Amino acid sequence: MLNANVLEFIESFEVARLATVDVENRPNVVPICFVCGEKGVIYSAIDSKPKKVTGRNLQRVNNISVNPSVSVVFDKYSEDWDQLGYVVVHGLAQLLLSGDERQYAENLLRAKYPQYETYLKKGAPIIRVIADRHVSWGNILTHQSENKSIDK
Amino acid sequence: MLNANVLEFIESFEVARLATVDVENRPNVVPICFVCGEKGVIYSAIDSKPKKVTGRNLQRVNNISVNPSVSVVFDKYSEDWDQLGYVVVHGLAQLLLSGDERQYAENLLRAKYPQYETYLKKGAPIIRVIADRHVSWGNILTHQSENKSIDK
Repeated sequence: MLNANVLEFIESFEVARLATVDVENRPNVVPICFVCGEKGVIYSAIDSKPKKVTGRNLQRVNNISVNPSVSVVFDKYSEDWDQLGYVVVHGLAQLLLSGDERQYAENLLRAKYPQYETYLKKGAPIIRVIADRHVSWGNILTHQSENKSIDK
Repeated sequence: MLNANVLEFIESFEVARLATVDVENRPNVVPICFVCGEKGVIYSAIDSKPKKVTGRNLQRVNNISVNPSVSVVFDKYSEDWDQLGYVVVHGLAQLLLSGDERQYAENLLRAKYPQYETYLKKGAPIIRVIADRHVSWGNILTHQSENKSIDK
């Protein structure tokens, strides 16, 4: 679903923001750490970051259980507003509690974030987001262009 | 509704992320520029940033017109995860099309973002978010601490 330019943009970020909807149709939005797997599937762990962990995780997990529709935004800010850009991925989320795919995602997350050695329990639940559409806006091609040749 | 520590944290950011819900109860989330007004009311303009402007703005405006519940997240990322922190403001949004409050908000936005000289039409619609509750997580006290005395 996600083309190469969109995936490259998304994967350049350490943090994205995940929006879910609660049972009363009110949105919730939180920052998330994430990885992209094969075919652009997005994974985010229910991790063990300090303080109020249970509460903040329960909200998004509860929301997904009653309404799996989610959106994830990946955006860059710049003082030069000609350089602004973002991608919003819309899709369906599911909590992975076990299985090969959960382990695959955990491995990817640990490879991306060395902090997970401290903050991620082995076997932790992982949210999977399968994109069904996306919106891109502004300049999403130059996010990491400084270190790349222009014709890569 | 928002205490001084929360307001100071929020106001330290150039960009936040606004989540709305569409008529089919699917979330949308986009990066926004914003200001805080009196009593912690949050304002964000329907501005004129380049490319696909109409579309991206219509989504959030349409959503608010059918469901005024919104969430806005303000978060800082750090490689040191003990320094992570965020505030999520939950509230009700309304589009201001005219009047003194709209002008007040436009003035605040122009004062915060010099880019609006180019990217904001005079009299542009402005989204007002009135917070009814918020969630804070992690370390929201040290965001700008480098330039402040510890006992301020």
